[in-house]
Amino acid sequence: MVDKNEIIKKLSSGDMKLHEIEKFTSNVKESVDIRREYIETISAGSLDNVAHYSLDMEEAVKKNIENPVGTIQIPVGVAGPLKVQGEYAKGDFYVPLATSEGALVASVNRGCSLITQAGGVTTRIISDKMTRAPVIKAESVIKALEIKTWIEDNFHILKETAESTTSHGKLLKIDPILVVGSYLYPRFVYSTGDSMGMNMVTIATEKALDLLQKKTGAHVVALSGNVCVDKKPSALNMVEGRGKTMIAEIVIPAEMVKQKLKTTPQAVVEVNVAKNLVGSAIAGSMGFNAHYANMIGALFLATGQDEAHVVEGSMGITTAEEQNGDLYFAVTLPDVPLATFGGGTRLETARECLEIMDVYGAGKVQKFAEIVAATVLAGELSLLGALASGHLARAHKDLGRG
Amino acid sequence: MVDKNEIIKKLSSGDMKLHEIEKFTSNVKESVDIRREYIETISAGSLDNVAHYSLDMEEAVKKNIENPVGTIQIPVGVAGPLKVQGEYAKGDFYVPLATSEGALVASVNRGCSLITQAGGVTTRIISDKMTRAPVIKAESVIKALEIKTWIEDNFHILKETAESTTSHGKLLKIDPILVVGSYLYPRFVYSTGDSMGMNMVTIATEKALDLLQKKTGAHVVALSGNVCVDKKPSALNMVEGRGKTMIAEIVIPAEMVKQKLKTTPQAVVEVNVAKNLVGSAIAGSMGFNAHYANMIGALFLATGQDEAHVVEGSMGITTAEEQNGDLYFAVTLPDVPLATFGGGTRLETARECLEIMDVYGAGKVQKFAEIVAATVLAGELSLLGALASGHLARAHKDLGRG
Amino acid sequence: MVDKNEIIKKLSSGDMKLHEIEKFTSNVKESVDIRREYIETISAGSLDNVAHYSLDMEEAVKKNIENPVGTIQIPVGVAGPLKVQGEYAKGDFYVPLATSEGALVASVNRGCSLITQAGGVTTRIISDKMTRAPVIKAESVIKALEIKTWIEDNFHILKETAESTTSHGKLLKIDPILVVGSYLYPRFVYSTGDSMGMNMVTIATEKALDLLQKKTGAHVVALSGNVCVDKKPSALNMVEGRGKTMIAEIVIPAEMVKQKLKTTPQAVVEVNVAKNLVGSAIAGSMGFNAHYANMIGALFLATGQDEAHVVEGSMGITTAEEQNGDLYFAVTLPDVPLATFGGGTRLETARECLEIMDVYGAGKVQKFAEIVAATVLAGELSLLGALASGHLARAHKDLGRG
Amino acid sequence: MVDKNEIIKKLSSGDMKLHEIEKFTSNVKESVDIRREYIETISAGSLDNVAHYSLDMEEAVKKNIENPVGTIQIPVGVAGPLKVQGEYAKGDFYVPLATSEGALVASVNRGCSLITQAGGVTTRIISDKMTRAPVIKAESVIKALEIKTWIEDNFHILKETAESTTSHGKLLKIDPILVVGSYLYPRFVYSTGDSMGMNMVTIATEKALDLLQKKTGAHVVALSGNVCVDKKPSALNMVEGRGKTMIAEIVIPAEMVKQKLKTTPQAVVEVNVAKNLVGSAIAGSMGFNAHYANMIGALFLATGQDEAHVVEGSMGITTAEEQNGDLYFAVTLPDVPLATFGGGTRLETARECLEIMDVYGAGKVQKFAEIVAATVLAGELSLLGALASGHLARAHKDLGRG
Repeated sequence: MVDKNEIIKKLSSGDMKLHEIEKFTSNVKESVDIRREYIETISAGSLDNVAHYSLDMEEAVKKNIENPVGTIQIPVGVAGPLKVQGEYAKGDFYVPLATSEGALVASVNRGCSLITQAGGVTTRIISDKMTRAPVIKAESVIKALEIKTWIEDNFHILKETAESTTSHGKLLKIDPILVVGSYLYPRFVYSTGDSMGMNMVTIATEKALDLLQKKTGAHVVALSGNVCVDKKPSALNMVEGRGKTMIAEIVIPAEMVKQKLKTTPQAVVEVNVAKNLVGSAIAGSMGFNAHYANMIGALFLATGQDEAHVVEGSMGITTAEEQNGDLYFAVTLPDVPLATFGGGTRLETARECLEIMDVYGAGKVQKFAEIVAATVLAGELSLLGALASGHLARAHKDLGRG
Repeated sequence: MVDKNEIIKKLSSGDMKLHEIEKFTSNVKESVDIRREYIETISAGSLDNVAHYSLDMEEAVKKNIENPVGTIQIPVGVAGPLKVQGEYAKGDFYVPLATSEGALVASVNRGCSLITQAGGVTTRIISDKMTRAPVIKAESVIKALEIKTWIEDNFHILKETAESTTSHGKLLKIDPILVVGSYLYPRFVYSTGDSMGMNMVTIATEKALDLLQKKTGAHVVALSGNVCVDKKPSALNMVEGRGKTMIAEIVIPAEMVKQKLKTTPQAVVEVNVAKNLVGSAIAGSMGFNAHYANMIGALFLATGQDEAHVVEGSMGITTAEEQNGDLYFAVTLPDVPLATFGGGTRLETARECLEIMDVYGAGKVQKFAEIVAATVLAGELSLLGALASGHLARAHKDLGRG
Repeated sequence: MVDKNEIIKKLSSGDMKLHEIEKFTSNVKESVDIRREYIETISAGSLDNVAHYSLDMEEAVKKNIENPVGTIQIPVGVAGPLKVQGEYAKGDFYVPLATSEGALVASVNRGCSLITQAGGVTTRIISDKMTRAPVIKAESVIKALEIKTWIEDNFHILKETAESTTSHGKLLKIDPILVVGSYLYPRFVYSTGDSMGMNMVTIATEKALDLLQKKTGAHVVALSGNVCVDKKPSALNMVEGRGKTMIAEIVIPAEMVKQKLKTTPQAVVEVNVAKNLVGSAIAGSMGFNAHYANMIGALFLATGQDEAHVVEGSMGITTAEEQNGDLYFAVTLPDVPLATFGGGTRLETARECLEIMDVYGAGKVQKFAEIVAATVLAGELSLLGALASGHLARAHKDLGRG
Repeated sequence: MVDKNEIIKKLSSGDMKLHEIEKFTSNVKESVDIRREYIETISAGSLDNVAHYSLDMEEAVKKNIENPVGTIQIPVGVAGPLKVQGEYAKGDFYVPLATSEGALVASVNRGCSLITQAGGVTTRIISDKMTRAPVIKAESVIKALEIKTWIEDNFHILKETAESTTSHGKLLKIDPILVVGSYLYPRFVYSTGDSMGMNMVTIATEKALDLLQKKTGAHVVALSGNVCVDKKPSALNMVEGRGKTMIAEIVIPAEMVKQKLKTTPQAVVEVNVAKNLVGSAIAGSMGFNAHYANMIGALFLATGQDEAHVVEGSMGITTAEEQNGDLYFAVTLPDVPLATFGGGTRLETARECLEIMDVYGAGKVQKFAEIVAATVLAGELSLLGALASGHLARAHKDLGRG
């Protein structure tokens, strides 16, 4: 056992590294404390609040973090009740949203209230998958096409091999197999159950690639060739989907739009066209929406999803139209990776937040997905309503001037 | 004073709404407790860990959250020391990363170690701004162009008006002013000091628009017309920049690449071309990088940035080349909104994490920005090294087979 | 029979319209002459050269043009010999290029010369198809998904129906079927033989849609919903391909690069990375190449292809790398609609130009496609070489200054 | 003087190259004839129609073509009268369209007829420029930023230098100057008068770069770094504009929509949203329109524009809305390079076609641009009307079924 002060001294002098502390301590808590104490010596302030955690750090270091000094805290608010008429989620839900952006929970809450009054959001999951696409370099395009053909012809063997590494993952297809010059980008598409599945598909794909290399001499340049496409915005994922591809929709009576949003269906439709469609088009954006990222982000933090996947969840298209005088409103989310099991969902507060909606653990991810889609609609509708209402207010003022 | 059980009963029956609790309680803590207790009644589990917080919730409800039930906790680890040779950040830093993705901190840490050994990362901020672009509807294209001309001719008046709402914000330009049919999208570009500035620029722009409407009869359809572009991936922000536009670069001796990354400069360059450039090109991606979103996300959570801005931070281009046998490596980040003051940075743990790098408060945001850029480089380099090294390993195996 | 001067008078007064001339003339030539003569009366000059044509205008008005006044002439030059080692095109070819851009033919010719000396270009067609994607509006997302399922379940019926309208077209798949809100975009994918096939697939799809409407009540908003994607640049076509998806590649010995291009493999690789990959990435471009559109355009004009399809042909990625000291160079063209039969290929000069390569008529389109890909490589290589050589020249001057 | 048969023999044996014929002939016509005769020997057919030209080939070889064998012919039809209420084009015009796509001229003509009846199209040019953006490689990001600053500080010197090469071109700005790693992409923006200007700006930029290299040691990798962006689709050009940036708009009374297009304003608006906005969004397209490329293409061929620029002209956004029951319809074209002087416009048929609209030569390009924009609107409106009308027809049938 080394003395605490001794460790801190060695850290200061560079004789020990941050990740080596564990070697000289008897338990995780002790190493966390020493590491934090050391960091405090070089910090402009204390780390008292970072030290104030209830998570089981012993478990966290096994699965979620290295070099821990404690935890951060982010306020979590609740919006709801939100009535969902999904295939898996049916009923009224309270939705936990972790954020530091004032007014976000209130805005989503306003959307929930309107939705619930209007009878609820319809939600559907269109597809559900996780992907990994390595990049392979062949000697020539001819060789690349031979490898492509081999993959197509031997899909069942690759599938068997890939699936031998996992109890839950299923290799659904390898498609598309893009070829650029002599580079080959086969996109391995899996179902991954209630896990988000990135690790699962990475391991499974690596195993399949080992076989591929053995059989064809294929040379794997990198296990990911950015055609997955993981944590980057991409048109490919807009078209092909990734994670959960979902739609939520609702029809809101004109009277409710007027009472609750202080605007009209026509005004909401106009804002949607001018801003979400035309504005995003001229800006070269992949987000034909107002702010999916806000709801996705707050839900992801609350429930232990991978924060970098907010990027993918930010893509999507909002549509709105007048339908017999009422407001038809829909959000389409092509690419939302989600889990109710594994990864960050095991963190104590994440689990608790999932349990608020009764979606922690196996067999719950579709239900969770539908609540996510409904929540995105609630927030999107609320903001478009607010923008449209400002617009009406101004229009009235304009008239007043005349 | 209403009784707690009474409130919960009313919440259950729908006679009271979640946001109305505060009306019947004497302080924030009490209302938080009651709200959480109510949510527990409909939850599949307890909210004990959500209840375990040290944040000053009184302050949080003023600025950051509505309907709070407590906080979530996310483990925070530290990577470093990371040597930065910036214009503002000079020296060795420890970087706090909040994440639940196992191996991320370790990977960034490996990058930091390599960087520091190689003498540090050079960082530069190319531009610094926050934007808001409303959408205006004119009667005709002729009228739209008249409004455009008016804006150009009267920039100083609009500037004065906009700046009258803020002590820190400066309106730098209104450019571009995009016109589509009779829609007009003037992009208001501000400097916002150490705040991220979205609220500031929204308020300032609204005031300027009031004047514009009065003077020209312009009809504002929505205060944001998606040309800002806020929280959505966009080519416009890639070109024009938003938040901090930054570059970090380093040259790593071949010997160190070999020792630390178990690969060669050539192999890293090949992975970068095959994956980050060609792979992203064929996938229609705006992220010509491996995983900026991971580092941006973990730093954003730790330091109280807006989590939805991870979307913008995920864009950017990694370049790598062999330079006299060594590895030149750079990350270019066109669009990273950042703050060291206001918003979520005031949360106690966020402040503590900022203080680790001595970047909390006024006059610190450029220094922080350069550390962010350097951290992104550390993580990107580490992952590309790992991919390239796997690639070499396989290449060796392939040769072994022969 | 009406008198010529009488017709021109009526045209002038607005009592007759341009397309009504045919009603009062005995043959096409006469109406063409009268129409041209009328246009000359309002023109600032004569139309003598427009009148100088040898095309059979009788045939042209049946298939290619309305309100004709003659033809335009564009110079056509020949590049070659170009050695192609394709699956369908094998041997040395002369390539007709119609253009008014001075130096283009010379530049392509230089590329051909280098290629032929180096032993020829390898070409492969990866996929071959024509598409049409209508947009359908359902009452709700649930109904939209029902229609999607119906389409998937009844593919064989839709195929039979679609194919009943054509002797050459085959419906290969309906995929993807994109859903946005309650809109449905099923992409009908056909093989169309030696015709470009747009008309064929439009007619076939319309017939299939009639059945779909009858069976499901689907409401077709428009026969094309822009997911085809016809004559517009699109990421979807980059990923999914359209027309001919092709690759051409070559390895050029360093010595030849030096002699013929006055540069080095390294310099060409650097230009390709800096310009075609990184430059296009930051510009938000879909053309990761220098100028495919030039070669595609000149070949399309010469051979009677649809000029608006140049848009699709402009997309694609050039890759270059040093391979054992030599230059590996490849062009990847995801989306090149082509025909050797029907449409504009029947125009006399187009047919003659196709015959230069012996690719007019049935059974020739794959051969033609491979020559097109090889020609694109020739022009691309020549320009990159010129840029790289300027670069070297300047580098030498730079050194000289020192 | 060498004998014709002798030359052909040498061409066959490879002892002479195609471009060497001119050395052994006394005039251009002779060399063209011999070249064509040789090509006929290896062709599957004659080149009789290619030989039938009236262009002055002597002039063409100086400016437009190498290795000529004659010309191609493409039928040219006329649409109109088209009433334009532009800033430069005022009055009724006949528009020449060269195409082999049957029905295109008829469709545009229908649009012209409707437009003219409705009182004409309003057109405006928003900006007018030509660009060239080299790629420069610096030793480091610090050096790159120094060069950037030098460019900004010495704009007047660079301007003077660039403009010394041309009598018509003016360097308006160098903006944006994009930096990626140590690469620098300064975008030189010029006004070029009535020429399209690519050659002009290339020469001017090269001269300015010589100075830049001398003063800063900047290393020019390539004279074009794909940030221009020339002949490739790009988001940058959508935002920044290139060539002529133009808008055309019209309001069409509901009654005329009904009579002429057999549909309603509402149906046209619905098609525009479903197809041009939402369809293009999900397809990752830069063409938020139905078929700008068709009109741009046919006009470009007729008037001697660069056919590869059709790519840029294909981008743009169509907007449509109901306005007091009538149809507001607009096309926005961000990027249409155009000339009325130089390049292909000097070809005899091109000149004649330009003269039909009285837009050949100096001082005419703005007028021409406005006619182009109006023509695009005519064709776009006609097609959307046709799609909408099919849609209504089907809707009626659907109702009939019930």
